[in-house]
Amino acid sequence: MILLYEYLPYPGLQRYAQDMFQSHGFSPQNSAVIADVLLCADLFGIESHGVQRLIRYHKSLKNREVDPDTRPEVVWDTPVSAVIDARRAMGQIAGVQAMRLAIEKARVTGIGMVAVRNSTHYGIAGYYPLLALEEDMLGICLTNSESIAVPTFGAQPMLGTNPIAFAMPADPVPFWYDAATTVVPLGKMEVYQKQNHPLPREWAVGADGAETRDAAAVISNIRAGRPGGLLPLGGLGEEHGGHKGYGLGIIVDICTGILSGGCTSPHLKQADGEHTSHFFAAVDYGIFGDKATQRAHASQLLDELRHSAKAPGQPRIYTHGEKAWASRQEKLRDGIPVQQRTAAELRLIAGELRLDFDAYFQ
Amino acid sequence: MILLYEYLPYPGLQRYAQDMFQSHGFSPQNSAVIADVLLCADLFGIESHGVQRLIRYHKSLKNREVDPDTRPEVVWDTPVSAVIDARRAMGQIAGVQAMRLAIEKARVTGIGMVAVRNSTHYGIAGYYPLLALEEDMLGICLTNSESIAVPTFGAQPMLGTNPIAFAMPADPVPFWYDAATTVVPLGKMEVYQKQNHPLPREWAVGADGAETRDAAAVISNIRAGRPGGLLPLGGLGEEHGGHKGYGLGIIVDICTGILSGGCTSPHLKQADGEHTSHFFAAVDYGIFGDKATQRAHASQLLDELRHSAKAPGQPRIYTHGEKAWASRQEKLRDGIPVQQRTAAELRLIAGELRLDFDAYFQ
Repeated sequence: MILLYEYLPYPGLQRYAQDMFQSHGFSPQNSAVIADVLLCADLFGIESHGVQRLIRYHKSLKNREVDPDTRPEVVWDTPVSAVIDARRAMGQIAGVQAMRLAIEKARVTGIGMVAVRNSTHYGIAGYYPLLALEEDMLGICLTNSESIAVPTFGAQPMLGTNPIAFAMPADPVPFWYDAATTVVPLGKMEVYQKQNHPLPREWAVGADGAETRDAAAVISNIRAGRPGGLLPLGGLGEEHGGHKGYGLGIIVDICTGILSGGCTSPHLKQADGEHTSHFFAAVDYGIFGDKATQRAHASQLLDELRHSAKAPGQPRIYTHGEKAWASRQEKLRDGIPVQQRTAAELRLIAGELRLDFDAYFQ
Repeated sequence: MILLYEYLPYPGLQRYAQDMFQSHGFSPQNSAVIADVLLCADLFGIESHGVQRLIRYHKSLKNREVDPDTRPEVVWDTPVSAVIDARRAMGQIAGVQAMRLAIEKARVTGIGMVAVRNSTHYGIAGYYPLLALEEDMLGICLTNSESIAVPTFGAQPMLGTNPIAFAMPADPVPFWYDAATTVVPLGKMEVYQKQNHPLPREWAVGADGAETRDAAAVISNIRAGRPGGLLPLGGLGEEHGGHKGYGLGIIVDICTGILSGGCTSPHLKQADGEHTSHFFAAVDYGIFGDKATQRAHASQLLDELRHSAKAPGQPRIYTHGEKAWASRQEKLRDGIPVQQRTAAELRLIAGELRLDFDAYFQ
């Protein structure tokens, strides 16, 4: 499969995405927030969560499935915690509001934890801890999502990909972790489907609950609500720790769906759309000691890992965040690779909204 | 390999372990703490961390490698956080003190986080969140440990098994998660070595950094400080998410070694012995809403998981903690299975300390 890309400069693409949301009625501030979250995914090389999602947002906004004026509401509040009811606002708006509130609380008490209910897909979980990094804080973000993963020994999808994101300041590159608690996210499955390649072992089970290598069948089962789905991190059964990934997925649903008083993964798809739950935490790590010392110590640990002995044929060892930071640098310089199909969609949206697409890149 | 067991009643074994530590000079209270942590592992069926370790403790106490009078010291303190320098006290004493301090803080502010440095092996990580469960709180405990796991693409052990323990109240059985961030803990490796069985794929790498099935070689490499070791959860490379387990191991070292101002995994073995770092958190989940509602909601999620459709040939789906709770009930009823070799060691220790071993079980 050959994919053709256009390389679009970041500043123009960012302005275009922002204007698109503004044209749909979002405030300039909220439009900038949504555009920033989406473009961050593209910068980090996580194309599946970037501007290629604009067409979906455009359609749901045209169909008035999302109300641009919805304001998430703080419904529970303590000096260290809060719960926000997103009232089905765009997940990015609820997410940034929640993480900023967690940071506010951490500035005062040292720790802030905010759970969010009735939200929608908020882009990459890893975006939100970046806001904590900007304040020299440790950031954590979790989200549940529509059930597409089976429990260990199970055949029915009961948990979402339920990613864990965690960031700690360090130099020259922070530690930045953002990973599904399943073996792979659905996007990887779709790549195998498009390329018509058999799946690697122990990524997924079929409708009968037995292991399958058929990506197309897994995806169509998930879409049709049939049994079968992704396996938790660690794979099939318990021999390689599948029960560990399964348990991490439950932890994410406890911190999101349960603490927020919202919906758990098996219940978040409802007649009026999704009701996703998130969890955000900011920790001013100065509540444990001298920040400069701790930051230097974290940097040292990461450096030691990167410079430890390599396995045969391996040119280097990474720490989490390095690839994303390198990708961002490269894409800010060379432009964001946008699939031709996506670029055509962006032009189509621009036409419908009477925006001059090409003018953004002159 | 046939193992012969004696079944020793819990109350006598608990009293014996307590008296053993008291004979070595620990206070009655600290002796009870250490015995309780060790016996909890046996009750939960985690034999490797139970009374079979008594012989090691006995030897190191005889050799005065551990000072029974050492008092861990709070060296940093805020309303939501603290750092404890364990001053190389027994890990169980430092661990229980730290978790109780986290709970104290959570009672006042809703959240308590305590990091511990210069500690020693503290038994199962999962013991400490149980103390939070007793207070109807959510509990988290992390610890680093001697480096025996290689980074993704690495050949040198750089991280410990770095387990994550997490507990949330629920009925009829709480959610109780305690798992290494490696594919398996070292204990599992030792079982394969004793049975002379080849390891399953992708559990470990040899001294050359390539995958190996030779348990004896892996263990002897680790003991000799040579390259090679356990693989992170997710296995070799990135195809099955090995980089995710590797990242979770780093997260544990950040929360323990870095936040405590202590030692990270690669540095915790020093001339005077180990300098382990731990992390404890207690969250009164009432800071997010009505506790009865949340607890019922968590119970419902776990119940739904257990009753979801099973994979072919699977009689049931578990949630984390069920097996441990069932094991505890069974062992309180039938006695704790103690390997004959271990029982002989216990009698030997009793003789040396002039305790009448058999009198504990009459």
